Amino acid sequence: MKVKVATKILEANDRIARENRKIFDGAGVFVVNLMSGPGAGKTSLLEKTLAKKDGLRIGVIEGDIAGSDDAERIEIFGAPVVQINTGGACHLDANMISDVLGDLPLNELDLLFIENVGNLVCPAEFKVGEDMKVMLLSIAEGHDKPLKYPLMFQESSALVINKIDLAPYVDVDVSKIRKDALSLNPGLKMFEVSCRTGEGLDAWVQWLRETAGKHRVS
Amino acid sequence: MKVKVATKILEANDRIARENRKIFDGAGVFVVNLMSGPGAGKTSLLEKTLAKKDGLRIGVIEGDIAGSDDAERIEIFGAPVVQINTGGACHLDANMISDVLGDLPLNELDLLFIENVGNLVCPAEFKVGEDMKVMLLSIAEGHDKPLKYPLMFQESSALVINKIDLAPYVDVDVSKIRKDALSLNPGLKMFEVSCRTGEGLDAWVQWLRETAGKHRVS
Repeated sequence: MKVKVATKILEANDRIARENRKIFDGAGVFVVNLMSGPGAGKTSLLEKTLAKKDGLRIGVIEGDIAGSDDAERIEIFGAPVVQINTGGACHLDANMISDVLGDLPLNELDLLFIENVGNLVCPAEFKVGEDMKVMLLSIAEGHDKPLKYPLMFQESSALVINKIDLAPYVDVDVSKIRKDALSLNPGLKMFEVSCRTGEGLDAWVQWLRETAGKHRVS
Repeated sequence: MKVKVATKILEANDRIARENRKIFDGAGVFVVNLMSGPGAGKTSLLEKTLAKKDGLRIGVIEGDIAGSDDAERIEIFGAPVVQINTGGACHLDANMISDVLGDLPLNELDLLFIENVGNLVCPAEFKVGEDMKVMLLSIAEGHDKPLKYPLMFQESSALVINKIDLAPYVDVDVSKIRKDALSLNPGLKMFEVSCRTGEGLDAWVQWLRETAGKHRVS
């Protein structure tokens, strides 16, 4: 019975996600659903990406249970941004995104980031109309995360391992993260970065630019 | 409609949680629902607590989406432990706990830890029959967490701020965490610890012993 309800909710969500995707495609905007556990550094990654955008026109939808801190951080970079407060819900869904599409200049964007609620579980189940999912993992979360939270690693096109500057101070084996993540998702693209020191960010932005560009041409 | 379904699920859950609680009370065991985001160090805190247990009889229920790594880590300390795999679900519920109660020697325990799935949102909504909720926050997650994930801070009796040894290497204001957490929950007991260096753990274990002891007497 419970499974039936959940399946219905997911089917309704997927239908709205397909409608969102049509709108994004019509506007020629490439959409990234950015997911991680709490405090892995999603907003910091967006700040650093915006600082290196170099002509790429980026918009952001911020998802949080409460507050507008993240949208304020993004606004400083002059990017169009909308804050969604889920009011308790632990993930964004397609309907929440559909509701705010009129508030963004989609035709003037190359790339739209949808920053999901900090949660390593539920966001992976709900499509929002994205072209790809990207997940972020803080090295401080430990090397056991891929095997403990497999769905998000399986659903993502890229894994950004953040806070790599903390490596000397935590007992974490990054090679185990890479190995276990690849065992779950052999095509996963991986980056090691530090939003604090700037390490590794150029490779991430370069890949993002190429990936969004390919989409535009195709 | 969705709200109605959710309310029904929560009501059914609370009923089973009350039954669990009766069983725990009958056995004289004090039950702690331990919650945090992924990788904040719940299992590490349990390891350190077990190492300092000094006569306190502690059992553990481990909740994970997949895997049994955490139960294996607890077993080394000779504590009775049961692993629950939620198979995708992002939190434990009262029914999952009810199912495993027969697998633990409740009458021989003073204290039972229920380690929830790593998630800063959903576990706070589902009672499992606990006497109190304790939440753990890794300092690496940042000082914006109380205001972004208010429910868990409101529901918890104690907040353990972990990985305090990383303070020199992250741009995090611990006093802001304390201030915002207290604004949400004025009675919140707070500890700053490092499971890596051992700092602050004696105060935590001492408080836990006193709190479980009071329950036993009352």
